[in-house]
Formats: sequence, C-alpha cells, structure tokens
Amino acid sequence: MAGKFIVFEGGDATGKSTQARLLAERRGARFTFEPGDCSIGPAVRSILLDPANDHLSFRAEALLYAADRAQHVEEVIRPTLESGVDVVADRYVSSSVVYQGIGRGFGAAAIAEISRFATGGLLPDITVLLDVDPSLSDRRLGGDRDRLEQAGDEFHRMVRQGYLDLAEGDDSWLVIDSSGSIAEVAVRIDAGVTEILP
Amino acid sequence: MAGKFIVFEGGDATGKSTQARLLAERRGARFTFEPGDCSIGPAVRSILLDPANDHLSFRAEALLYAADRAQHVEEVIRPTLESGVDVVADRYVSSSVVYQGIGRGFGAAAIAEISRFATGGLLPDITVLLDVDPSLSDRRLGGDRDRLEQAGDEFHRMVRQGYLDLAEGDDSWLVIDSSGSIAEVAVRIDAGVTEILP
Repeated sequence: MAGKFIVFEGGDATGKSTQARLLAERRGARFTFEPGDCSIGPAVRSILLDPANDHLSFRAEALLYAADRAQHVEEVIRPTLESGVDVVADRYVSSSVVYQGIGRGFGAAAIAEISRFATGGLLPDITVLLDVDPSLSDRRLGGDRDRLEQAGDEFHRMVRQGYLDLAEGDDSWLVIDSSGSIAEVAVRIDAGVTEILP
Repeated sequence: MAGKFIVFEGGDATGKSTQARLLAERRGARFTFEPGDCSIGPAVRSILLDPANDHLSFRAEALLYAADRAQHVEEVIRPTLESGVDVVADRYVSSSVVYQGIGRGFGAAAIAEISRFATGGLLPDITVLLDVDPSLSDRRLGGDRDRLEQAGDEFHRMVRQGYLDLAEGDDSWLVIDSSGSIAEVAVRIDAGVTEILP
C-alpha cells in the first residue's frame, strides 16, 4: 500500500493522543483513533460505556472492540493508505492484546487471532510506544497509597510491561521515553520515525 | 452442567422458531434466540439492521454477532443451564459458521474459532437441523425464475448444504425433515430428541 501506517500505543496519560495528532499534522497524515472513529463507532462505544451494561461480559467487550476495529480498517484506514496518504492511529491491535489479552486474562494469542480476523491482517509499519516509568509518578504522588491506588498501580505496571514485551526485539516498534515537555517528546518521536521511515 | 442445551438450526422459513418454542414448552425449558436475546442484543441488532450502516463490513458484522453471542452465553444460557433448567435456542454457533463462514467466504474454521472465544467453548448437547429440500419449494413456485430468484435459490442451497455438512457424521446433530404440518414435524423432533436425551 502506498501510504504508511503509524500506530501510537501506551497506557493512559502518556500523551499518546497529543503526540499522534502532532505527528499526523507534521506528516500531512490522516489522524484517527480507536475505539470509535468509524460509522458504527458511536453505537459500539455507547454499548461499551453505557452504565446500564454493567454486566457486559469481558468476551463481549473484546469482540465489540474487534468489530469497531474491523469497520475502522475497512472504512477509514485501508482506503486512506490505498489512496497514498499516511495514517496515524491512536491505538490499534496491541491495545486489545494488552488490555483484553493480558489485562482480562484471555491471553495475547487469543486476542491477536481475533484482531487478525478483524483487520484482515493489516499491520502497522511502525508502532510508537510512549513509555513512562510508573515509579516516577509514584514518587511524585508520595506518602501512603490506599488499596485502590495500589491496585491501580499494579494494573498500570502490567499494561506497561505488556507493551514492553510486545516491543521487545521487534524492529517495527519504537519505544519513546514520554517524560519531558510535549516538544521534547515530539523531537524524540520524529527522530525515531525518520530512522525507520526515511 | 445440570440443564441440557438444545439448539435449533436451519435456513429461514423452515419453522425453526416455532418448533424451538414448542419443544421448550414441552420440556419446561427456557426458550431463547440469537441474535438479540440478551441485554446488549437490541443495541447490537440496531447496528446490524440500521439502514444507515449499509457499508457495515462483513468482518464487523461477524464480530457483532459474536459479541451478542458472548453476552447471551454469559447472561442467559450458562446461568440457566447451571440452575438445572434446559435451554432451547433458536440459532447458535452453527448459524455463524454457515452464514458468515461459508456464506461470506471467511471459512468455517475462522468463524468457529471466533465463536469458541465468544462462547468459552460451550457446545449444545443436541443440534436440531430443520431441513427442507429446496427443489420442493422450487417446484411449488413453478414457471420462469428471474435472476434474483435464482441467486436466492443458490444461496439457500449453499446454506442447506453447509448445515448438512456440519451434521454429517456428528451424533449430536439431528436432521429433521421439516415438510408437513407443525404437529407432524414436532412428533419427529420429539422422537429424535428423546433418543439422544432419554
């Protein structure tokens, strides 16, 4: 395909969306995001987020994310790439592998298989992982942590480690230290992306 | 699990829903159906059926059916069976294998894999296939068939053959001739089900 497909991944509050938008602007690429940036996205999101669906099964949740992704690929990502325009996406398959596969305990392989079906096998040219060391934010918060905060920490660590394991030894992943100012992080991203996609 | 899980499958207009409801009444079982008979069912159906979604991708469609099924199993089928009550379902995994796997060309194996994830591996004790020979209804219609009718015939034949192939050599399938009155077909179903589940 003529366009390049660049995906941003990482935990919440790593500056992912901001940096993805900025890179898209700099490259004249189409910015897009998951879940939700396709015609069925709002309806799927409303099922995922409706408080009335507090008994939503984790399996249904994973399949709804996959359905949204299937539509997103067919309607937005693939046609844009085929038209020769780059795509920068905020989250893609690896979010599901980490959050559902590892986080919900279904296993990375099962979720990767469903995503392979959803995407028809379309993979990113580059995945930019915005990484932040949780011990830094821990120190910043300081003092005693309550049980909920500790559980949250554990989840964040698991998400971070899940992403780092995916990136390990894969040349199409770029692990970027997301500490510092927006401009500082953007410079690191540009340097890394340019090295892989001159 | 204490309850027995009986699934009705077959093409449209084979009397499936009617016979499934009648069998559920006779056995004091819970009648249920797919897609839609769970808390997210109406929302998922509205995505599948909304005319505004005429560009719904076939992959998204398959994954939405699977999401509905995942919720249906966790919320309705599994708890009912665990409480010791039989479940009679109008459509289940094999509908997806035939309509999406064979009909949409994704292959039976790919769709079976997604359904295995959706259901957590829950299989029916019996699948009742209501089978009608399409050449009979062809003869009944008579005369010249237009192109659309012929395409419809071909699709019905493919669906029928898909089901017969699934049933072939599988002792948990009951292939029932659905010609004749409702009462005649019900007698055949009772005889067959009683043989497998005395």
